[in-house]
Amino acid sequence: MRYAPSDLPVFTLTTGPVDAYPAVLRGLAATVLYDYDPAFQATYQRVTEKLARVVKSETMPVLLQGEPVLGLEAAAVSLIGRDDVVLNLVSGVYSKGFAPWAARSGAEIVELAVPYNEVIDPAAVARALAARPDVTVVALCHHDTPSGTINPVAEIGAVVKAHGALFLVDAVSSFGGMKVDAESAAIDLLVTGPNKCLGCPPGLTILGVSNRAWAKMKANPQAPRASILSILDWEDAWRADKPFPFTPSVAEINGLEAAIDLYLAEGPEKVWARHALTAKACRAGLKAMGLPIWPADESFASPTATAVRTPKGIDEAVLRAEVRARYGVVLSSGRGETLGKLTRIGHMGPTAQPLYAVVALTALSGALGALGHKVDVGAGVAAALAVIDAG
Amino acid sequence: MRYAPSDLPVFTLTTGPVDAYPAVLRGLAATVLYDYDPAFQATYQRVTEKLARVVKSETMPVLLQGEPVLGLEAAAVSLIGRDDVVLNLVSGVYSKGFAPWAARSGAEIVELAVPYNEVIDPAAVARALAARPDVTVVALCHHDTPSGTINPVAEIGAVVKAHGALFLVDAVSSFGGMKVDAESAAIDLLVTGPNKCLGCPPGLTILGVSNRAWAKMKANPQAPRASILSILDWEDAWRADKPFPFTPSVAEINGLEAAIDLYLAEGPEKVWARHALTAKACRAGLKAMGLPIWPADESFASPTATAVRTPKGIDEAVLRAEVRARYGVVLSSGRGETLGKLTRIGHMGPTAQPLYAVVALTALSGALGALGHKVDVGAGVAAALAVIDAG
Amino acid sequence: MRYAPSDLPVFTLTTGPVDAYPAVLRGLAATVLYDYDPAFQATYQRVTEKLARVVKSETMPVLLQGEPVLGLEAAAVSLIGRDDVVLNLVSGVYSKGFAPWAARSGAEIVELAVPYNEVIDPAAVARALAARPDVTVVALCHHDTPSGTINPVAEIGAVVKAHGALFLVDAVSSFGGMKVDAESAAIDLLVTGPNKCLGCPPGLTILGVSNRAWAKMKANPQAPRASILSILDWEDAWRADKPFPFTPSVAEINGLEAAIDLYLAEGPEKVWARHALTAKACRAGLKAMGLPIWPADESFASPTATAVRTPKGIDEAVLRAEVRARYGVVLSSGRGETLGKLTRIGHMGPTAQPLYAVVALTALSGALGALGHKVDVGAGVAAALAVIDAG
Amino acid sequence: MRYAPSDLPVFTLTTGPVDAYPAVLRGLAATVLYDYDPAFQATYQRVTEKLARVVKSETMPVLLQGEPVLGLEAAAVSLIGRDDVVLNLVSGVYSKGFAPWAARSGAEIVELAVPYNEVIDPAAVARALAARPDVTVVALCHHDTPSGTINPVAEIGAVVKAHGALFLVDAVSSFGGMKVDAESAAIDLLVTGPNKCLGCPPGLTILGVSNRAWAKMKANPQAPRASILSILDWEDAWRADKPFPFTPSVAEINGLEAAIDLYLAEGPEKVWARHALTAKACRAGLKAMGLPIWPADESFASPTATAVRTPKGIDEAVLRAEVRARYGVVLSSGRGETLGKLTRIGHMGPTAQPLYAVVALTALSGALGALGHKVDVGAGVAAALAVIDAG
Repeated sequence: MRYAPSDLPVFTLTTGPVDAYPAVLRGLAATVLYDYDPAFQATYQRVTEKLARVVKSETMPVLLQGEPVLGLEAAAVSLIGRDDVVLNLVSGVYSKGFAPWAARSGAEIVELAVPYNEVIDPAAVARALAARPDVTVVALCHHDTPSGTINPVAEIGAVVKAHGALFLVDAVSSFGGMKVDAESAAIDLLVTGPNKCLGCPPGLTILGVSNRAWAKMKANPQAPRASILSILDWEDAWRADKPFPFTPSVAEINGLEAAIDLYLAEGPEKVWARHALTAKACRAGLKAMGLPIWPADESFASPTATAVRTPKGIDEAVLRAEVRARYGVVLSSGRGETLGKLTRIGHMGPTAQPLYAVVALTALSGALGALGHKVDVGAGVAAALAVIDAG
Repeated sequence: MRYAPSDLPVFTLTTGPVDAYPAVLRGLAATVLYDYDPAFQATYQRVTEKLARVVKSETMPVLLQGEPVLGLEAAAVSLIGRDDVVLNLVSGVYSKGFAPWAARSGAEIVELAVPYNEVIDPAAVARALAARPDVTVVALCHHDTPSGTINPVAEIGAVVKAHGALFLVDAVSSFGGMKVDAESAAIDLLVTGPNKCLGCPPGLTILGVSNRAWAKMKANPQAPRASILSILDWEDAWRADKPFPFTPSVAEINGLEAAIDLYLAEGPEKVWARHALTAKACRAGLKAMGLPIWPADESFASPTATAVRTPKGIDEAVLRAEVRARYGVVLSSGRGETLGKLTRIGHMGPTAQPLYAVVALTALSGALGALGHKVDVGAGVAAALAVIDAG
Repeated sequence: MRYAPSDLPVFTLTTGPVDAYPAVLRGLAATVLYDYDPAFQATYQRVTEKLARVVKSETMPVLLQGEPVLGLEAAAVSLIGRDDVVLNLVSGVYSKGFAPWAARSGAEIVELAVPYNEVIDPAAVARALAARPDVTVVALCHHDTPSGTINPVAEIGAVVKAHGALFLVDAVSSFGGMKVDAESAAIDLLVTGPNKCLGCPPGLTILGVSNRAWAKMKANPQAPRASILSILDWEDAWRADKPFPFTPSVAEINGLEAAIDLYLAEGPEKVWARHALTAKACRAGLKAMGLPIWPADESFASPTATAVRTPKGIDEAVLRAEVRARYGVVLSSGRGETLGKLTRIGHMGPTAQPLYAVVALTALSGALGALGHKVDVGAGVAAALAVIDAG
Repeated sequence: MRYAPSDLPVFTLTTGPVDAYPAVLRGLAATVLYDYDPAFQATYQRVTEKLARVVKSETMPVLLQGEPVLGLEAAAVSLIGRDDVVLNLVSGVYSKGFAPWAARSGAEIVELAVPYNEVIDPAAVARALAARPDVTVVALCHHDTPSGTINPVAEIGAVVKAHGALFLVDAVSSFGGMKVDAESAAIDLLVTGPNKCLGCPPGLTILGVSNRAWAKMKANPQAPRASILSILDWEDAWRADKPFPFTPSVAEINGLEAAIDLYLAEGPEKVWARHALTAKACRAGLKAMGLPIWPADESFASPTATAVRTPKGIDEAVLRAEVRARYGVVLSSGRGETLGKLTRIGHMGPTAQPLYAVVALTALSGALGALGHKVDVGAGVAAALAVIDAG
């Protein structure tokens, strides 16, 4: 039995786009209202207020009308001017990829890099800032997804705050699946989206902005205005009595409301716990099958995605294709430097439930076996189950 | 009986966001696939190929992941470089508003303007081009929605073609509701979206690009790359075997497929006919009620939106609020210069059915009466019905 | 412009199946749970409890797993045994049609009939009961839909109660659109469903049962058990800790929950008011167009459906076909004796909004005109609007 | 980590109601049309014609408006009159439970029974018919779901045909998941529904009727007419130009069309293969974990549900509750005589995909371990995977 490429997959265990919650799908199907209809304006404000409870930024969250790649570019070009010095903390492909946007204004970019299976040491950040007291902005990717590693955002945030720089954080693929918010990590510009751990389709950016970040953007003559890249234009758009700069993505907003309602009803801590347990079970199973994870240390392996190293002699693309063809399971590849070196199993939103780790382990083991790399699926599942049962 | 602002409206007769087709809403609720899943990649190619049948551009249509305001900005900054001279044809708020984007590169902008209740005369375009043979790009807004006027795009296109300039057209709120395509109007860069006459929610841009336009953008060093504003990055993304520059809006693509399927199944000519008839009935009713339309001549009144002048002494915002509170009907205001001077009745997608004109006429008449401006609703509806029955 | 029979209609203004609320459609699309899953059992109890607030029966409402024709047959054969004498109050096709079910057990049926455009006089019921003191069950159809007439259920209920008989009421097409409940009308067995004024699709029956009715059914050896027709089997099924006699219609239950949530959120009185106003506007418009309603007196014309007499010389089926072909509007015919004599305009659920009366009036007028019976649509709409504005 | 009873389950692996296909859920959410709208009448005919391709009865399939328990009762009381002699083939709780319906008319019931973990031997049927040449109807439950056993329907059908009796078959939980149709098994009255292997919610019955069965029902004075239990009333209802006896369940019909479209698009053989492989993998895993299946011989174990014996000392209800609380997995219990003795894992519709067997095995193993009955989950999953990979 083989699944054809045109067959719908059975399990989408990816790092995004992720399988959406059924309630979110129904939310997307809600009646489309005119954006200036008072019922929609009230919806928009209500959704923002619900988000404020979890983003915990000093000011009301901002929604941008495109998936978080828009948010990241907009954050870079809005916050950073030609007179800035940016310390870019590089622990993977996504943090490295932020640099060109940060540099677009003409700012100087200072890089603090670690190997892509390591994470940033807060002490090293402190040293880098001591060496360059003129750094005005520090940029971090919390979960460098192509590596499946989690940087110590709160500790780094404390260092950045002590230094006085602005802290810009990409929390796209961690937010909603683990504890990360503007308050606890002293983040000035938090960029995330509903399309990962909140279980929505891609299409929106969520921003958490501090008062200092607003002031900096407003003072930045290079910050986009009257542009899709503008954050400034949207500052007051959350208020039901204020205009939108342009038409918001009404259906995505409706889907986001369903997602945030689910998140608040279940309780963030409970949601994080099932993400963490799913990932932990997954790692235990991989270990038992002799498949090392990509992160150099399990202590900073992501709770929302598990990156497993591709065994020697296996073509990673062939492996994923076999996983899909044989079992209907979709996994994610690496990106850039990690492409071909690892496979990623997403634990985000609706699939962040421990038994999905068993699904992934079984499928991975079967496909590896089919490609000549035999692993002990029984040991893997047993180890995963032991973790789940202890969870 | 009054509808509260928080009550869902009964009829959304707006110029966008518009009421979506029920089949589109169900399309939005389809299972969210991973963007690199072969089933989704095949979907993306299939949707593009269906669009190609109606966009009729020389090359495959391009989808951008944001509502058409993104497409318009992207088109301007991708196509237009600092050495260009742009003839911007201004017949309303939206065409006027295009200038700052066109000028961002440093290009010179030449304006040919008419009053906002008139349309551009192709002969005037010819004269303007004769006066400025160095014009390299001509920009037109086909349906300047805030005025409800339709410019003679095909005739202007012929003039532009003869001149040799590139023709950039905003067909956002006309495409899908009347005949307009890249081939018949010689358009080099057609910008539209599914969120008006195709009956989708806002969230995507559709571009039709000529070979010359691609060449121009590729040769333009200022054209965005690695940006949300890049068109270039998406050139090959429609092919199932090519990567996406970043994550597409999966759910919106699914909704768009439902819309294009409906459109092709009904048949474009049939769809256009019901848009035209609805608008014509609406205009006849307004006339019979003594309410002049905004366009100076009915011959260029839009088939997808009817702009009616606000009677003396009536506050337009109060009028729309009354229409909603009294009847649950949502209409659109003017924008910019036309704000407060007219009300717009959308005939787009699912509400482009003649009886909706009667709904709008009745609601408008009732609200006007309540505000002290009595009109003869009976005459209005009778006139509209006569048009429908002759349609 | 003509709508083909295969085209989806634009407006469904029928007496059932009716256009469903969008929120109900999304409810139907909710994840299907196993009926014995505790989450579904809790749902079933919760839905029943919400219904109890509006059915107001002495005991918890019972849901049967089929549209109300099942409920009516089940009610008849469960409540009525061979020793009963049933007074069947006949004011139309549906009340007349109840007799065969009532007689199935062998019970004697006594009929009190009025012309099908009249309603039952409570005093006549009192006389009939005085003449036949052995009557044990009185059956009434509250809204005899094929006539569009509303019987005085509360007054008749008082008479029946004084007599001591059991009162069985078909409130299928009135419940949810006007005031009618078990308590206020002293109903022992109220039969209704969500597929009319609650705006659900057909598929469920809702029963309100008094203690006396339960006792009577339990004592009736002929009452069905272990059958789709059994009411007794479902007595305790609403309780989350009790088994279902057989599998309930899970999706319909989910849809019903959405409907009852809408109903309670809007407030029954407000819902009834918009049904009443829509019907009143419709009647005023018909009158102004010279089209008499079927009920002999407007005082008992239904707020949930307006029956208009077919003008002389018009084939009623042709008329409805013309209404659909010309305007995309679907209306209902008469049934049985009223078939061919009247057309019914439904005002149920989402289309019980006053402007839909204008839609119906316009479509009816246009089709009549096309068939040679000219009416003054302007006068009709003006009259309807005057009612709406005074409402 | 525990799932609360009110939490939505993660995996519904039951024997019905089953998890529905997402496309079916969207089908249920389609616009509700008036049953006499020509567009709906065409839909109803089209759905019936699609069903005809897979039911393969001599005449067009009949839809009844209630889940198959209605169909079974209706079949019994329509086909069987007081002069009939019925051979009821009893291999489980459901076949045994058919007898009271079969006997309602006063017919004589002859029983051929086997233990509930065995299946009917066609030779025994032949002997029973030889002993009672007056048998006029033979009744079989193809898949006696509470036992998870599949009777040899085609072989028995041949015996019944040779005898000349009518063959009434309950194929509710096998149809759509394995080969069974009226033609290949010589079935005169096939009763099934969309709510098992076709992946719909419960709410409809599908009947396949032979010419002889129609003749028999028409000649039966006891066959219900003007009743929810009538089959006769619905004979011509599939035709777009014929009336419905009463309102059909519009939304369920829409859902069924989505299901039959999926079934035909995938191809019945391919659908059956994945049901069979899932069940086979499940059985292999159970065996490897030392958990015997309920059927006495694997050769007649169902491909659509696997019944596993409850280990000594384990309370089956506690076991299922633990499976749900610990892993969010919902399984089915036994029924009647098998209640408490076995647990059933459904492989129906969307969950008839091999990896769901792994999910079930893991959850069962973990819950058993938690209740003190340790099994080797690794061996179970490895055995299941070996079967899948060989499949």
